Amino acid sequence: MPHLVILYTGNLDAETDMTALCRSLADTMLAAPDDAGKPVFPPGGTRVLAYPAPHFAVSDGGAAGRAAGGDFRDPGDYAFVYLNLRMASGRTAATHKRVGDALLMATKAHFQPLFSQRHIGVTLQIDEGHEVFDAKHSNLHPLFKK
Amino acid sequence: MPHLVILYTGNLDAETDMTALCRSLADTMLAAPDDAGKPVFPPGGTRVLAYPAPHFAVSDGGAAGRAAGGDFRDPGDYAFVYLNLRMASGRTAATHKRVGDALLMATKAHFQPLFSQRHIGVTLQIDEGHEVFDAKHSNLHPLFKK
Amino acid sequence: MPHLVILYTGNLDAETDMTALCRSLADTMLAAPDDAGKPVFPPGGTRVLAYPAPHFAVSDGGAAGRAAGGDFRDPGDYAFVYLNLRMASGRTAATHKRVGDALLMATKAHFQPLFSQRHIGVTLQIDEGHEVFDAKHSNLHPLFKK
Repeated sequence: MPHLVILYTGNLDAETDMTALCRSLADTMLAAPDDAGKPVFPPGGTRVLAYPAPHFAVSDGGAAGRAAGGDFRDPGDYAFVYLNLRMASGRTAATHKRVGDALLMATKAHFQPLFSQRHIGVTLQIDEGHEVFDAKHSNLHPLFKK
Repeated sequence: MPHLVILYTGNLDAETDMTALCRSLADTMLAAPDDAGKPVFPPGGTRVLAYPAPHFAVSDGGAAGRAAGGDFRDPGDYAFVYLNLRMASGRTAATHKRVGDALLMATKAHFQPLFSQRHIGVTLQIDEGHEVFDAKHSNLHPLFKK
Repeated sequence: MPHLVILYTGNLDAETDMTALCRSLADTMLAAPDDAGKPVFPPGGTRVLAYPAPHFAVSDGGAAGRAAGGDFRDPGDYAFVYLNLRMASGRTAATHKRVGDALLMATKAHFQPLFSQRHIGVTLQIDEGHEVFDAKHSNLHPLFKK
């Protein structure tokens, strides 16, 4: 924990660098402070994975976009990005908001150019995990032990 | 919200049009009424994403199917489709059932031909989201504001 | 139910057989006993799906690994594997632990060779489903009815 999974319409792969977004969001998580100013997340356990969907359907399929017209290359072509961060339970609401706001700001910055070129929706949510079993096996965490 | 994510065994990609299923399910969501007869879901926030798994294992791997024989092309080849709709919390149980029944009917209709050709399991579940942070950034929603 | 979904960094596909891991974990689930010694999971509903992420960012991106050096081929190349089992709610904590321990053992055995070759983190979690709608349509279950 934490992990951030990005599910998005595959039409975005030709238009934006999703690996760069992953890096930006991982850096954002690593920099996020808790209420005491200490890192919220352990560096050895922070990861972001992004998955383009080869099959998708968004909203009305393009009718409203085409009807609205405008100067997009294809106003009937919609894209969607869903970002879900799952973090361990027990953090404060203030920490959730701080982490969420920082991730949203990084996400908006990444997609800013696209918003003037196409129809796109972005949703970011944070879930607390309520797992009934949790186990780790890693040779990454030791790299960050002092 | 809502979003519907479909996870399925990759062996189905050669046998059925999953993009068409996405469209069918998005249309089903857009048409779903709440208890007052109004749309349950906002058109600008409705999306369906489908992901074929390149690696998978189903059930006993085919032994029972081969033992049962029958006239399928390959009775030991199993497929699975998992459909998960995440919707905002707070809807009634009647609305959950109405939405779920409609999605199941559309899903059954889509896979009907396959059920006479192969072994396949379909599971559909609806979860209410209990996110601790939720943010949206979209130029899709305005298309549907009157 | 149950289903086990594996999300992992795509750099692993060239290094290990994820289809074999899926089979190993499905077999582990099929063999898992409940508190009364009976199978926890129905054979016709047991499946494992694994998804390599084409885009990802792990931890600090490699800096700590490179600084630590060592004899890995590339100490700055990190991998991550997240395994999430969703099972029906209502099982005992003892059953959760028994299933989780068995899955962790099988997962560790699979990745054992990689742990001496690269930086990699593995996390396994079990969630109980709390779905508000649940439906199945399958010609697999009947194969296992006596």
